[in-house]
Amino acid sequence: MKHTLAVIGYGGMGGWHCANVAEKLPQIAVKGVWDVREEAREKAAASGLFAYASLEELLADGEVDLVTVATPNNFHRELVVACLRAGKNVVCEKPAAMNAAELEEMIEASRESGRVFSVHQNRRLDRDYRIVRRLLEEKTLGEPYFIESRVQGSRGAMFGWRGHRVNGGGMLYDWGVHLLDQMMDMIPSPVVSVDAHLQTVFSGEVDDNIKLFLRFENGVSALLEMSTNCFSNLPRWHVSCTGGTAVVEDWDCHGRTVRLREDAGSMAWDDDIIYTAADPTRTMAPRPAYTTVEEPLPAVETDWSDYYKNLVDAIDGKAELIVRPEQCLRVMRVIDLAFCSEQEKRGMTCRI
Amino acid sequence: MKHTLAVIGYGGMGGWHCANVAEKLPQIAVKGVWDVREEAREKAAASGLFAYASLEELLADGEVDLVTVATPNNFHRELVVACLRAGKNVVCEKPAAMNAAELEEMIEASRESGRVFSVHQNRRLDRDYRIVRRLLEEKTLGEPYFIESRVQGSRGAMFGWRGHRVNGGGMLYDWGVHLLDQMMDMIPSPVVSVDAHLQTVFSGEVDDNIKLFLRFENGVSALLEMSTNCFSNLPRWHVSCTGGTAVVEDWDCHGRTVRLREDAGSMAWDDDIIYTAADPTRTMAPRPAYTTVEEPLPAVETDWSDYYKNLVDAIDGKAELIVRPEQCLRVMRVIDLAFCSEQEKRGMTCRI
Repeated sequence: MKHTLAVIGYGGMGGWHCANVAEKLPQIAVKGVWDVREEAREKAAASGLFAYASLEELLADGEVDLVTVATPNNFHRELVVACLRAGKNVVCEKPAAMNAAELEEMIEASRESGRVFSVHQNRRLDRDYRIVRRLLEEKTLGEPYFIESRVQGSRGAMFGWRGHRVNGGGMLYDWGVHLLDQMMDMIPSPVVSVDAHLQTVFSGEVDDNIKLFLRFENGVSALLEMSTNCFSNLPRWHVSCTGGTAVVEDWDCHGRTVRLREDAGSMAWDDDIIYTAADPTRTMAPRPAYTTVEEPLPAVETDWSDYYKNLVDAIDGKAELIVRPEQCLRVMRVIDLAFCSEQEKRGMTCRI
Repeated sequence: MKHTLAVIGYGGMGGWHCANVAEKLPQIAVKGVWDVREEAREKAAASGLFAYASLEELLADGEVDLVTVATPNNFHRELVVACLRAGKNVVCEKPAAMNAAELEEMIEASRESGRVFSVHQNRRLDRDYRIVRRLLEEKTLGEPYFIESRVQGSRGAMFGWRGHRVNGGGMLYDWGVHLLDQMMDMIPSPVVSVDAHLQTVFSGEVDDNIKLFLRFENGVSALLEMSTNCFSNLPRWHVSCTGGTAVVEDWDCHGRTVRLREDAGSMAWDDDIIYTAADPTRTMAPRPAYTTVEEPLPAVETDWSDYYKNLVDAIDGKAELIVRPEQCLRVMRVIDLAFCSEQEKRGMTCRI
């Protein structure tokens, strides 16, 4: 079945949705755009898109069965609910909402309308993430116990409305929601503690450099970092498993796994103290390289257009959603708790 | 003034103290050793040291004014208190005690006896640590806000008594006490929260792979990691400051600082989305290399024998101790709290 998309909010991501869907998804026609800003409507019209004069006009357009909401975060709830009540299926940019209570209202509107509602957690399809997921699913290195997931930039700026608290700006909403969504999608266990250090290095208004420390009920410990003032990056992923370590250095997915050789267990280890550059130590002395095996990361192919392909399949009743709003609600509850954690300067317990 | 040392506990570190002091500190004569194990006494005698037949014999030796206690951790309290009461000055191997209550008792014995008591937190003199300290003291990169300090080994073993809970084994006592001592010595602010993830990957009895997440009252956030099952190491130090980033890769102190060029602030940044390998992003897009300056780490010389030099100067009333027991008590209180944190699976608040 052919679907017709309208986009609300024609900023950076709104423009990206229009272009990406038009280019890669023949099953979706991109019809038009609504934006409160006249200059954005003019830009859309100049790109050959229909520029709705009002939200009401868009909602009344019977041809449109799918709406993507790509406004600043504080407008998501109202717009998504209006679209669902008008009978549209809805994709909302991330974060779905400003807090879990808003998202619950949106999910309820979706239930009442019977329409599909999903959140554009597109980074479920990032190659680096799928590689780590594959490693854990295939238990290549045994069971994970420490996972570090980071994005580190150094531009020292929160662009546009992302620098404003009222719009739901800041790194926790912007990138935190991605890294949490990936981690919570990957680890099949409730989050039982959240310790969030939300620093404001330059913004003065929103969190711009943050670390989250999560504890899952199954024992996995996760560190998430989102930095905008980091000039020497650590790996995108560092995964410690019982049987070895995986590193994904960057978005180009350079990296490796390193594990013990099968016959290394039988090696006799010298029980004496070893003198390293840091003087005596045994536990931290380096292991001879010949006792380990280094292997490439698994080859994984991903395609972002799979997000919309899955979405229309879900609308057509042919597939389950990849990004289910209930998953996003879990993430949003952790985000709520992370803000509490920073405010109270302590780790929070939960079962999310 | 010439001092005479006896060592209690002639295992790996006891032997190290004897050899190191004899080699590097002409102001200290190494006289003898007491160890409960006959084979250790025989080994000491074979090395030309006097082997005391009992603790009482050592304590009664009026020639000995300094005792270093290098037994398993659970014997520290009793031995240190006995030495202090016998009028000896005492160095105790780290961790000073099994918990803060024990250490308070030891400090009280030191006050009552008027003798010097210090803990062998020798890693205050590690070159990597002194480099980071120097950077922070000189504010080369502005103010720190995230600090990561790690030691990662892959030998997957806790040697000897360090694998046993009754002896105070495990990574928190063994290396955690070093990394906490360094961090708390360096950051001039109380610790206000502690979230400890103490994993037991292979030991079954003690923590063998751990992460601590600390919040200081001045806003600095610290991650400490001690791993024994890590096959792909992260840097020894990663320090995010307002004005740049410092990395110390390893104990050989390879590394660098990276900061913005002075004139980079005036550069016009493209406000458009940038397409990286991970598709659209602005905040996480790489910064052009020409906008930053990479510089070598400061040259710092350290000498471990400074620990004992300072100690004898303190005994002679010529210097303040570098490692004061009150500092160790703060660290021990954080360790107590870290065990609570792991037991209760949540972050703890405090003001230590």
